[in-house]
Amino acid sequence: MRIELVFLGKTKEKYLAAGIEDFVKRLSRYTRLEIKTIRDTRQHRKFSENQVKENEGRDLLAAVNSSFLVCLDRTGKQIDSDGLAGQIRQWEMQGRKSICFLIGGPLGFAPAVLQQADLVLSLSRLTFTHEMTRLLLLEQLYRAYTINAGEKYHK
Amino acid sequence: MRIELVFLGKTKEKYLAAGIEDFVKRLSRYTRLEIKTIRDTRQHRKFSENQVKENEGRDLLAAVNSSFLVCLDRTGKQIDSDGLAGQIRQWEMQGRKSICFLIGGPLGFAPAVLQQADLVLSLSRLTFTHEMTRLLLLEQLYRAYTINAGEKYHK
Repeated sequence: MRIELVFLGKTKEKYLAAGIEDFVKRLSRYTRLEIKTIRDTRQHRKFSENQVKENEGRDLLAAVNSSFLVCLDRTGKQIDSDGLAGQIRQWEMQGRKSICFLIGGPLGFAPAVLQQADLVLSLSRLTFTHEMTRLLLLEQLYRAYTINAGEKYHK
Repeated sequence: MRIELVFLGKTKEKYLAAGIEDFVKRLSRYTRLEIKTIRDTRQHRKFSENQVKENEGRDLLAAVNSSFLVCLDRTGKQIDSDGLAGQIRQWEMQGRKSICFLIGGPLGFAPAVLQQADLVLSLSRLTFTHEMTRLLLLEQLYRAYTINAGEKYHK
C-alpha cells in the first residue's frame, strides 16, 4: 500500500527538514512513500484568510492521487500509536492501493477539504506548526510500520 | 516564574537537539528556563526494566528543585495550547516561584514519580520518543508564552 503525503510548501525549518528526511528514508523500508510538495500561496496578501484556505484546499485536493483521504486536524479523532498501526493493517487487508494524508496550512482546512475526507485524525489536542506536524506524522507512520512488522523501534 | 526541565540523558538525535536549542533561546525572552540533564542509566543491563524505572525515578526526583511538579505522561490530562497558556497564567497569579516538568525515559515513569506529581499532563495519546517529547514540550511552552504575551507566534 502506497502512502501519499501532500505538503503545502517546502519545510523551511532546517532541523525539521532533517528529521523529516530521516523518517522518509526509514519508512522506505516498509512502504512506498510519496511526498508531493505544492506551492504555498499564503504570500498573496490580497486574499482574505478564508480565500487563502479555499485556494489551499483546492490545490491540496487537486494534488491527491488516492481514493482514501485522511486529513490531520486538531479536532479529529484521536488514536494512540497501536490504533494507527491497526488502522494501517486494516487498510492493507481491505486491499487499498493507497492512502493520502493531508496536513492543513497554518489556517487549517477549508470546509470543502474536510467534507472530502474519509477520516479526520488528530495527533494531539495541542496546536503545532504544520511543519512540525509533518515530522510527527512521519514518526508515527514509521512507528506504526515497526509495530506491524513486530520490530523494535529504532531511534 | 522559573521553568525547570529535567532531562534523562543528553539529546542524541542531532536535529532534535537543534530544535530544542532553538526553542530554549526563544523562551529565554519570556521566562527563566533551566534544563538539568541527568545521567541516563539504562546502559546498566544488569537491572530489570522495573529497577531501571525506579532508579531513573529516584534520580529524576532528586534533581527537581521546584515545589510544583508536572509529569508528562501519555495517560495524563490532555489540554490544548490555550489551556496550557491559561495554566501558566494561573501559576503566575498564584505566585509560584518555579514549575518543574519531567519527561519519563523510554520505559515511562515509576509509580513513585507519578505519585509525587502535582499534575500529570499528556501532550498526545500517541507515543513519541522521549527526545521528541522534549521538543514538543518546549514548542508548547514557547507557544503558551507568546499566547500570554498577546504576540504572534514566530516560526
